[in-house]
Amino acid sequence: IDKVLENISLMADKAQKSCIRFRPHFKTHQSAEIGNWFREYGVKAITVSSVKMAKYFAFHDWKDITIAFPFNLFEVDQVNELASEIHINLLLENLIAAHFLEKKLENNVGIFIKIDTGAHRTGILPHQKEILDELIHFVRKSEVMNLKGLLTHAGNNYDLKGKDDILANHKKSIAILNKVARRYQAQFPELQLSIGDTPGCSLAGDFEGVDEIRPGNFVFYDLMQFNLGTCKPEQIAATLFCPVVSKHPDRNEIGIYGGAVHLSKERILNSKGDPLYGRIMDDSGALLPEENFVAHLSQEHGILKVTHEIFNRINIGDTVRIVPVHSCLTANLAQKYLLSSGEWITNIHNP
Amino acid sequence: IDKVLENISLMADKAQKSCIRFRPHFKTHQSAEIGNWFREYGVKAITVSSVKMAKYFAFHDWKDITIAFPFNLFEVDQVNELASEIHINLLLENLIAAHFLEKKLENNVGIFIKIDTGAHRTGILPHQKEILDELIHFVRKSEVMNLKGLLTHAGNNYDLKGKDDILANHKKSIAILNKVARRYQAQFPELQLSIGDTPGCSLAGDFEGVDEIRPGNFVFYDLMQFNLGTCKPEQIAATLFCPVVSKHPDRNEIGIYGGAVHLSKERILNSKGDPLYGRIMDDSGALLPEENFVAHLSQEHGILKVTHEIFNRINIGDTVRIVPVHSCLTANLAQKYLLSSGEWITNIHNP
Repeated sequence: IDKVLENISLMADKAQKSCIRFRPHFKTHQSAEIGNWFREYGVKAITVSSVKMAKYFAFHDWKDITIAFPFNLFEVDQVNELASEIHINLLLENLIAAHFLEKKLENNVGIFIKIDTGAHRTGILPHQKEILDELIHFVRKSEVMNLKGLLTHAGNNYDLKGKDDILANHKKSIAILNKVARRYQAQFPELQLSIGDTPGCSLAGDFEGVDEIRPGNFVFYDLMQFNLGTCKPEQIAATLFCPVVSKHPDRNEIGIYGGAVHLSKERILNSKGDPLYGRIMDDSGALLPEENFVAHLSQEHGILKVTHEIFNRINIGDTVRIVPVHSCLTANLAQKYLLSSGEWITNIHNP
Repeated sequence: IDKVLENISLMADKAQKSCIRFRPHFKTHQSAEIGNWFREYGVKAITVSSVKMAKYFAFHDWKDITIAFPFNLFEVDQVNELASEIHINLLLENLIAAHFLEKKLENNVGIFIKIDTGAHRTGILPHQKEILDELIHFVRKSEVMNLKGLLTHAGNNYDLKGKDDILANHKKSIAILNKVARRYQAQFPELQLSIGDTPGCSLAGDFEGVDEIRPGNFVFYDLMQFNLGTCKPEQIAATLFCPVVSKHPDRNEIGIYGGAVHLSKERILNSKGDPLYGRIMDDSGALLPEENFVAHLSQEHGILKVTHEIFNRINIGDTVRIVPVHSCLTANLAQKYLLSSGEWITNIHNP
């Protein structure tokens, strides 16, 4: 609990000092209870990555939700239902979805237009001026869609390594977004700029021109973030407790009940270039050296490779704390949390 | 439905011809409804990979269940509850768990001892005679544990490529298991031999000395099996329908609503050595060429890389059928099935 609150507090302070809105992404914890912890830091507006999550958090009294995923035509009925109750922002990045919404929307929604500043996942590229012009003007003419601003997610920060490269890319991404926005700010001075990713938001102090940040993963952090250099081990707030079920002294390997259906198969490479699916945190909260790691995952089994010394300290019938590579995916699979207070809480999968 | 039934039928026939028990693994579909389809092929005994799954299928009238996962000490209460109602077989591979069970078990259970014939996940190695002797004699003396036999899972078949190598390893694995068993068959002639994996069970016709097969994945198959050479594309029975949400003509990429929380991040490498997370099946059920594949997955987004021709055939608002790399993990995440009859059915996650 303390770690989560500290992670929230740091990010909320940073937003406040830069005078920008903190609209945290709730896809990481997906929990009404943890969501409530954000309210103490003045958070009133949130981000989610699916209509299902929007419905869940709307039910739990969130009144201003951005669904940060390109609008999916199949979900218009659910969006209409949601938009009749709370304020919903949708993401558009093509005219087909815009025309469809114009025809089918029954209630007002806010619109962010997704700009691809280099991640090349989805979004309009900065040089695609014609499409962007047409989309902006179409939305501005609409009576059901209210243009809010431009939104990006610098997902390419995840392909970098180290603070300097991530900060440089963060700066570049913001500069591109500002440059695109300048083309429209004369006609539309209220145009907001929204950025997202945890690596950039964790490391940067400079958010020039940005009106809103939407980081999500920072609430728990994980091995991927630690590997990128965007968090310290003591900021990692979510681990998976796995029972030890077998020991193999011939190869210093330990079998745990904790597999791909618990940790997901997200992987990073260790310094030798071998894939790892998690690392081990000891009871004091310290991360064990890199030579101790989750080396294999099948559906329910995990296999730890450990040093001889650690091998002798872990016994069948113990539990080991595994730091996941990607906490969002592990939390999505775990479906519930045991808090440091001893209380169990649920998430969207156990409403 | 037809594909699943045909997959079941082929495997059931093979078992029957070899006069061995077909104890299918239900971890793949995790569905009471699909489980019922097996009953028409004479299946009365099943395999699961967790106590939770055992409880679910016991509730759905399965009376003979092997929990094919090294016994986890933390679950003894649930095992006792289950064993008071139905016949449960547990997996042992160490003395700590055996001594613990002897003390805590309240009802009789069957015991399979896990032998590691080369997969090196869990289990007793063939040369660890002392441990195996001690474990077998301990279980035989027990009044609550009934020794059933030796069990293996040739998971190393998944590291091979092509029919010949898999058949050779299947033969080797069975030979090792038989050799270990011969040490005990004079004292204990009823000792059963149980083998597991879908690659071996799909390709082999010879199961010398084997009493039981426990394949699971064959019910749906998937890209991993197709890549190994253990199924034909037309045997793949489970695909994920994903809405198309964006198109990027500059790079022939298509954004779908289908990410790591739907497909899992299981990956295989394509013939160029790039990771792929799924391939595309067209409406006729044909697998599109390998150049059309799921190239990236984030939490909710999937990115398809496709040829120019396929790019032009897929539009925003369409759905595409994605063949998962690992159907067990995708089914675990999907939590429900739309049958070819138009009916929706649930699995363990939507009981």
